[in-house]
Amino acid sequence: MRVAILGATGAVGRTMLRVLEEREFAVDEIVPLASSRSAGTQLTWRGREWTVRVPEPGVFEGCDIALFSAGAARSRDWAPVAASEGAVVIDNSSAWRRDPEVPLVVPEVNGPRIADRPKGIIANPNCSTIQTVVALEALRRVAGLRRFVATTFQSVSGAGESGIVALRRELEGQTAEGSPFPAPIARNVIPRIGAPGETGWTDEEEKMRHESRRILELPELSVAATCVRVPVEIGHSVEAAVELERPLTVDEAYDALARMPGVEVVREGTRDPLPIDVAGRDVVLVGRVRVDPDLPNVLHLWIVGDNLRKGAATNAVQIAERVADE
Amino acid sequence: MRVAILGATGAVGRTMLRVLEEREFAVDEIVPLASSRSAGTQLTWRGREWTVRVPEPGVFEGCDIALFSAGAARSRDWAPVAASEGAVVIDNSSAWRRDPEVPLVVPEVNGPRIADRPKGIIANPNCSTIQTVVALEALRRVAGLRRFVATTFQSVSGAGESGIVALRRELEGQTAEGSPFPAPIARNVIPRIGAPGETGWTDEEEKMRHESRRILELPELSVAATCVRVPVEIGHSVEAAVELERPLTVDEAYDALARMPGVEVVREGTRDPLPIDVAGRDVVLVGRVRVDPDLPNVLHLWIVGDNLRKGAATNAVQIAERVADE
Repeated sequence: MRVAILGATGAVGRTMLRVLEEREFAVDEIVPLASSRSAGTQLTWRGREWTVRVPEPGVFEGCDIALFSAGAARSRDWAPVAASEGAVVIDNSSAWRRDPEVPLVVPEVNGPRIADRPKGIIANPNCSTIQTVVALEALRRVAGLRRFVATTFQSVSGAGESGIVALRRELEGQTAEGSPFPAPIARNVIPRIGAPGETGWTDEEEKMRHESRRILELPELSVAATCVRVPVEIGHSVEAAVELERPLTVDEAYDALARMPGVEVVREGTRDPLPIDVAGRDVVLVGRVRVDPDLPNVLHLWIVGDNLRKGAATNAVQIAERVADE
Repeated sequence: MRVAILGATGAVGRTMLRVLEEREFAVDEIVPLASSRSAGTQLTWRGREWTVRVPEPGVFEGCDIALFSAGAARSRDWAPVAASEGAVVIDNSSAWRRDPEVPLVVPEVNGPRIADRPKGIIANPNCSTIQTVVALEALRRVAGLRRFVATTFQSVSGAGESGIVALRRELEGQTAEGSPFPAPIARNVIPRIGAPGETGWTDEEEKMRHESRRILELPELSVAATCVRVPVEIGHSVEAAVELERPLTVDEAYDALARMPGVEVVREGTRDPLPIDVAGRDVVLVGRVRVDPDLPNVLHLWIVGDNLRKGAATNAVQIAERVADE
């Protein structure tokens, strides 16, 4: 099996290569692709050197799967090319997520949708959305889902390598030229990810609403998410207030979460789910489950995931594994 | 006028001294008090040196006001002594906040309660609660208030001087011995402030619920707050989803907020309210007002305040000014 990786030198691309190495997934050959700035770079993968190339027509010939993480503009350009050359495209950008002919997939939640891909493209959801819907799906299975209000604590790596560089430079007292953030992020929090629309909600916040509804297949689900950048390197945290169709006790909720593939429960008495603990892991950690003091059918929970792994690379590779198994 | 300050060498105590210097408040003499560890230290205030002493019976004689910020245990011990010696105690700890004979005051919201203090003690609310209720009161005045769900981003100085020291040491790569936090805070967020009770809600979270109800004089108000520590030095941020009795547009909400004393509105198009911008200021910044996409009577807003100032010292000095004006 041959897998192309577009954006192979970025934060998510490098994580994709690492995840492909770690998992027992029969890939024999990779085709690492990136912009002309990185072309010619050597990457080590499975003990061999691979040369990074720029994407060009024909490069996807003979590839079974193409993992894309190079931004929406490049995805719009290259995904149809890769698909026409026979590769199944798994795209990490927002380019195709609203296309009804492109399934938007979190394998634990709606894995069977992978098979229905008329364009040969499958979209990988937004990072915060992935970890949130994995936890919510567990609760939905036992008690139904009416609404959720989420507040995110998103790490700088969500903005790619340049986000990590900006935080590190600022913490060393330097000004971070080329920072992807609208204000200093060191010793700060910034309540704005993406551009706000006319209603004041940002596109990142709209993504959580639209994508959660689509993945959970609840088009009327009430969703309000506020997305905030925090000075953490890797690992997004989400506080969610979840209105269910019927009340659940804390024990019932933890039982449902513990049964959910991809979720690891962290109960009271141990260290709460923390971004520094989830970094480098493929699971979503869920803890601090509490019943609302006034509304018995509302639960509050704290959900932590590695945004480069389950929020991006791992979810894409899980989709690739299912495609390979077809 | 003579003012005693218990906890004068702590993060809040030093801010109290600075705020007393800045504001046009006719204090002639201060009596700085602290634990035996700090006794003997010299403090500069209004260009003069003042010697820090340990509290002892008689020390409050001749003091008009005693500002306390030395923890709940010391407040329980010394507030009755100070009151019996004739000082009006304004206490920043949680010791007296649930006592029905002790008013719990944010001057802009329920200032007239200051006069009703049978024990001679007035309680200063929890830091996150103060900034939140100032913003909520503005909305309540025009549209009534039914419920709010808050998620906090609390700076390390909320845990006192030792919190700032811990963050700085960890950012320099040292382990922070004596850190007040249950995990490393540098490049991390910790979803736990205070100890959790049987229901899983922590005492910090219970404080926001109980104190908001008491200050707003809405004993049935539905409140759920999740309190999270973030690696910011000074400045707490609160994301609040607020259910009103009737819908408000974004413009109506900003108009109401702009009319509220103590609030400064930050509308779209300027830099959002940020902890690094509010540090050192006495106002509460409110921005990112959005109408819930599904529920027209729910507003989402982002509220930022300096936890050492409006969240502690400034609020206490504002109460002192009103006491002095009686």
